[in-house]
Amino acid sequence: MQIQWNELTEAQQAAALARPAQSNNPQLSEQVSDIIDRIRTNGDAALLDYTARFDGVNLATVKLSTEAKATALAQLGTDVKAAIDIAYRNIKAFHTAQMPKDVTLETQPGVLCELKHVALDAVGLYIPGGSAPLPSTVLMLGTTAQVAGCLRKVLVSPPNAQQSLAPEIIYAATLCGIDEIYLCGGAQAIAALALGTESIAKVDKIFGPGNSYVTEAKQQVALLAGGPAIDMPAGPSEVLVLADKDADADFVASDLLSQAEHGKDSQAILVTESQALAAAVELAVADQLARLSRQEIAAHAMQYARYIVCDDITQAIQVSNLYAPEHLIVQVTDTDTALAQLKYAGSIFVGPYSPESAGDYASGTNHVLPTYGYSRNYSSLGLLDFMRRFTVQTLSKAGLQDLGPAIMHLAEAEGLDAHKNAVAIRLAKLNAGTRDA
Amino acid sequence: MQIQWNELTEAQQAAALARPAQSNNPQLSEQVSDIIDRIRTNGDAALLDYTARFDGVNLATVKLSTEAKATALAQLGTDVKAAIDIAYRNIKAFHTAQMPKDVTLETQPGVLCELKHVALDAVGLYIPGGSAPLPSTVLMLGTTAQVAGCLRKVLVSPPNAQQSLAPEIIYAATLCGIDEIYLCGGAQAIAALALGTESIAKVDKIFGPGNSYVTEAKQQVALLAGGPAIDMPAGPSEVLVLADKDADADFVASDLLSQAEHGKDSQAILVTESQALAAAVELAVADQLARLSRQEIAAHAMQYARYIVCDDITQAIQVSNLYAPEHLIVQVTDTDTALAQLKYAGSIFVGPYSPESAGDYASGTNHVLPTYGYSRNYSSLGLLDFMRRFTVQTLSKAGLQDLGPAIMHLAEAEGLDAHKNAVAIRLAKLNAGTRDA
Repeated sequence: MQIQWNELTEAQQAAALARPAQSNNPQLSEQVSDIIDRIRTNGDAALLDYTARFDGVNLATVKLSTEAKATALAQLGTDVKAAIDIAYRNIKAFHTAQMPKDVTLETQPGVLCELKHVALDAVGLYIPGGSAPLPSTVLMLGTTAQVAGCLRKVLVSPPNAQQSLAPEIIYAATLCGIDEIYLCGGAQAIAALALGTESIAKVDKIFGPGNSYVTEAKQQVALLAGGPAIDMPAGPSEVLVLADKDADADFVASDLLSQAEHGKDSQAILVTESQALAAAVELAVADQLARLSRQEIAAHAMQYARYIVCDDITQAIQVSNLYAPEHLIVQVTDTDTALAQLKYAGSIFVGPYSPESAGDYASGTNHVLPTYGYSRNYSSLGLLDFMRRFTVQTLSKAGLQDLGPAIMHLAEAEGLDAHKNAVAIRLAKLNAGTRDA
Repeated sequence: MQIQWNELTEAQQAAALARPAQSNNPQLSEQVSDIIDRIRTNGDAALLDYTARFDGVNLATVKLSTEAKATALAQLGTDVKAAIDIAYRNIKAFHTAQMPKDVTLETQPGVLCELKHVALDAVGLYIPGGSAPLPSTVLMLGTTAQVAGCLRKVLVSPPNAQQSLAPEIIYAATLCGIDEIYLCGGAQAIAALALGTESIAKVDKIFGPGNSYVTEAKQQVALLAGGPAIDMPAGPSEVLVLADKDADADFVASDLLSQAEHGKDSQAILVTESQALAAAVELAVADQLARLSRQEIAAHAMQYARYIVCDDITQAIQVSNLYAPEHLIVQVTDTDTALAQLKYAGSIFVGPYSPESAGDYASGTNHVLPTYGYSRNYSSLGLLDFMRRFTVQTLSKAGLQDLGPAIMHLAEAEGLDAHKNAVAIRLAKLNAGTRDA
């Protein structure tokens, strides 16, 4: 659908950029809550039962066996193995470069403040099942956990008919040093990661994409008192391509379609200054679409694609900022000016030779990104998400003697006597010279 | 209550470290959801109505007036002003030192990956009302937002009878460059920050402590599709003091009581190798407690205080790691060894001259910390919480030519044709030499 931005009222403009409504489904919420309760009560038995029921696979144990692992690895093709190696190397390099530095600062003489970073102990990585394996998601989560130094990296994924996982998944997991792999999926897998079962010790944080059950389960366990943290809110994937009149229509079309083939609810938006380009892209989309294996899904999503024509690139940039896309593809001549004005995106792809699929797979950036306008509020996944920060402070005698009066005045202002007293008692002993530590 | 750790069964040990159960209150949840709905529908009118009803103050407008601000500032005492200045200076210095560095890395020739950090645009800072003002919380949130460079810093707090806020709050806010102050509190203030009203434009993330209504409202708005982010899960405040036989019993007692006076559900735990110290601390607590203004609250909390006696410091450290406290006070002779083994805490206070109140107010560290064992999963509040990260990637022609085949193999493995096609189309044009961008 071609849209002339300036011909729309403000309300129509907002509607043109609206995401699909997220339905609040009380039935889903109740089902998931029941699943969580059953995992809490019955542990592995419930997990195996759900796997039989929902995945149609009868397992004796939930852990992937060494034999199944070896069998799968022997089946891996050479080309895909080499491709996984390259992607792993780049993702590892970029996330290693994100290693934070501890901070040590004497804020005033004798008052030493430190900020320390450590890896989370145990992380759970959810990898969806389905018709095709997703080794790229294993790499995005597993490599980052490995670089952070997490002690336990726990991968869960629904089993295939061979009571195993795809060779690509297992190989990627091996590269990332993941030695705990469990054959389970859905809300039951999230519940097992959050609460623990006989086989699966609970984790501190849960990462990864999934269907509506998985998403709902992540939200529910994150709200449990003492429950795990989760990565970020989920929403349908989306791309916004910002293109000027000189952009290549075939390239733009291929990027829109990359997004569209993810799912029927995927959002694909072109924003351009050029009506001619918009028309050319529409034609190119029709042409490329006809040859896609996931044509039905992509065609469905493209029904809702928007081709927004603006007065100029400045206005087009404003539209992108209003939308705050997950993936932002910038195919304009003056990229520097555009980048300086573009405010929100999970990840930006610059220039004609940076298709979204580069970042989805192998450039080194993470493909777990905030959707649904959340690039205004949340960060794209990175090394820090697998770490935690805490502070340390050490005051010397002189440090407390200098700072103490200010602390006492503030404690007094807040009516907190005991806070004041904790300083007063120390200063009194120091002044009396009775202590010498 | 003195507890000999080794005399307990594992279950009793777990019970000794249990936090108070967080009750799931469906009535609270429904009340808060109604308040959010009314703010959504009626905006300022609903906000003013709730303020009249819950805070007993009839306001004409929700924004703090310039006159009220000036009047309050004129009332501020010199001592407390100077104390706020010192705390502000230290907090600012420590959080400025946390400024992250952008990352730029060529992961392979022609594949440039960048990680960029920018401040969140608009942050909401909730400051509770009540009998005493909390300027320290204004400083912890406001200074950090200011250092990050947030464009809008929005402070909300319930009004006093003078249709204003305490001078300490207003002065701290002024230091932090906060120029949007609104007189509202409770769930209605959180709803206003999340959804916006005629007077208050909505924000991207909401920070700050509050009662059960505020906490519930923060959880609910964070779950709205496209809703704001929130800082971290809330729970009752807590301290664990790790002390050896040479620790000063008066100091330890004063730190336990600092925690206890926060609220009736505050948790205060001593873990020591020395029964004699535990006994001395119990006596010192009784002595100091008798002279506190918030004696009733502190006494209530101290009924549930635990004095845990271990075989040695190594075991005491294990107990601290099991508990994962918000505040961890280390009063042992060999601090280096202890710090190397202590795994979890929101903030650690090292040595006899580092009382909790130093970090609560003025050392420079942030006092917004993970409670309820969340120091395993979450970070103490810092500069990064007021910023967001996104990635940028730029592939050159040669970069895509080198990396392209790996991307295509991975896309093929995942059954995503259009992803493969986005690369193939570009490589075909490059190889044909028909494009030269």
